Amino acid sequence: MKKSKVIGEGTQPLVCTPMVGKNPKAVLAELKKVLKKKPDIIEWRADYFETVADTDAVIAFGNKLKEVAGSLPIIFTIRSVHEGGQKISLSDNEVIELCAEICRKTRIEYVDCELRIQPDLFKKLCKIAHENGSKVVASYHNFDLTPNRDVMIQKLTLMEQNGADVAKVAVMPKSLEDVISLLSATLEAKRKLKIPLITMSMGGMGVISRMVGGVFGSSLSFAVGQSSSAPGQPPIEDLHEVYEIINRSMGV
Amino acid sequence: MKKSKVIGEGTQPLVCTPMVGKNPKAVLAELKKVLKKKPDIIEWRADYFETVADTDAVIAFGNKLKEVAGSLPIIFTIRSVHEGGQKISLSDNEVIELCAEICRKTRIEYVDCELRIQPDLFKKLCKIAHENGSKVVASYHNFDLTPNRDVMIQKLTLMEQNGADVAKVAVMPKSLEDVISLLSATLEAKRKLKIPLITMSMGGMGVISRMVGGVFGSSLSFAVGQSSSAPGQPPIEDLHEVYEIINRSMGV
Repeated sequence: MKKSKVIGEGTQPLVCTPMVGKNPKAVLAELKKVLKKKPDIIEWRADYFETVADTDAVIAFGNKLKEVAGSLPIIFTIRSVHEGGQKISLSDNEVIELCAEICRKTRIEYVDCELRIQPDLFKKLCKIAHENGSKVVASYHNFDLTPNRDVMIQKLTLMEQNGADVAKVAVMPKSLEDVISLLSATLEAKRKLKIPLITMSMGGMGVISRMVGGVFGSSLSFAVGQSSSAPGQPPIEDLHEVYEIINRSMGV
Repeated sequence: MKKSKVIGEGTQPLVCTPMVGKNPKAVLAELKKVLKKKPDIIEWRADYFETVADTDAVIAFGNKLKEVAGSLPIIFTIRSVHEGGQKISLSDNEVIELCAEICRKTRIEYVDCELRIQPDLFKKLCKIAHENGSKVVASYHNFDLTPNRDVMIQKLTLMEQNGADVAKVAVMPKSLEDVISLLSATLEAKRKLKIPLITMSMGGMGVISRMVGGVFGSSLSFAVGQSSSAPGQPPIEDLHEVYEIINRSMGV
């Protein structure tokens, strides 16, 4: 059996494709198309899932998705409306409980948890995830601006301190200086922290951060298989091509 | 007739291939191979040319090379041993006089002049170049380290102040922080100066600066056609591929 890839391992960032289907049929159709493009990992954006409030339905489909994906790892994500996700009826408490159920009742490898979630809830989810062999990707998104470099480093550090297994920051640049700031924060956090990082500067201006971020310490980059989930995501094929060229040129 | 490309114009950096042959036959053989890979511009590294001390031979071959290159622009460069070039018998004075003769007696578009050259000689070459419709690429190379960001900006600024048409800085990183520093200096200089810039962080660690430098304001990147002239130069095909992907992704 093929070995699953792990965020933070390997010589180049994993290429992750978001799945944004509204129902099982749509997500499976997406997956079928996306698999041909050979992503390293997929993210199931369950905030797009119509029946996200029905825990049994989510768990049942989570198991189905994992079965079809095979050794391809999955990140289960409910992106809140505060951080660019879809509007859903669940409270933060309910979201965390649903993520905990995913850890308990499926073999999905990763669950996403926004750093803005109350620390006790956040830590509780990390504990449950670890007890069940799952990992938590802590995340912070800002679609309006790029906080200053030190603030981004603090957020990544806090994620590690609160028990996350992976720390993610996705921010919108207002200038190319912001793109440099994100790369520089990534590099410093990479030197300071033990857990793998996922960072990106969004939009057209930030797209190069998705291409060279791996050099500065980002372990995963999002790319479009069928549908984009945030501005600036390049097609999977392009990202694979750029990684291959960078690796070859750097002598990795 | 096809229009020549100009450094600083267009939506992506020009890809420049160095020619390091020792004699006319070798340079022409290089050019023949390189032309198939479609560089945007070529650099004739005349410090590799065995008869560089024979002005008539250099001018005669300069004319021949320009004839064969057609609309493909040429940079005439005698890189000094101080900045990574070959050991030759000419003094700085003689090098500047040879560059001046290239401006006067050939249709070669650009001549390279190191910033370390005495200011009066440097300014004299700029004057002669402009009187003859040629342009001067001022350059600073450091194969040992990356000076701090402000020093690099000062050097680029001084090049403009002394009359150069293009300002080039090529430096060696000792850390990834140095690569960020070079990109950041490029961005600030681009905002401050009127002339086009050429900047790069060398070696394997710096190779991504050759790929994304254009986004931050570098107008040209060196790539290997047949032979490399500095550490970290990727193959032409790879650079073209990366530029195409970046342009597409940024929506340029």
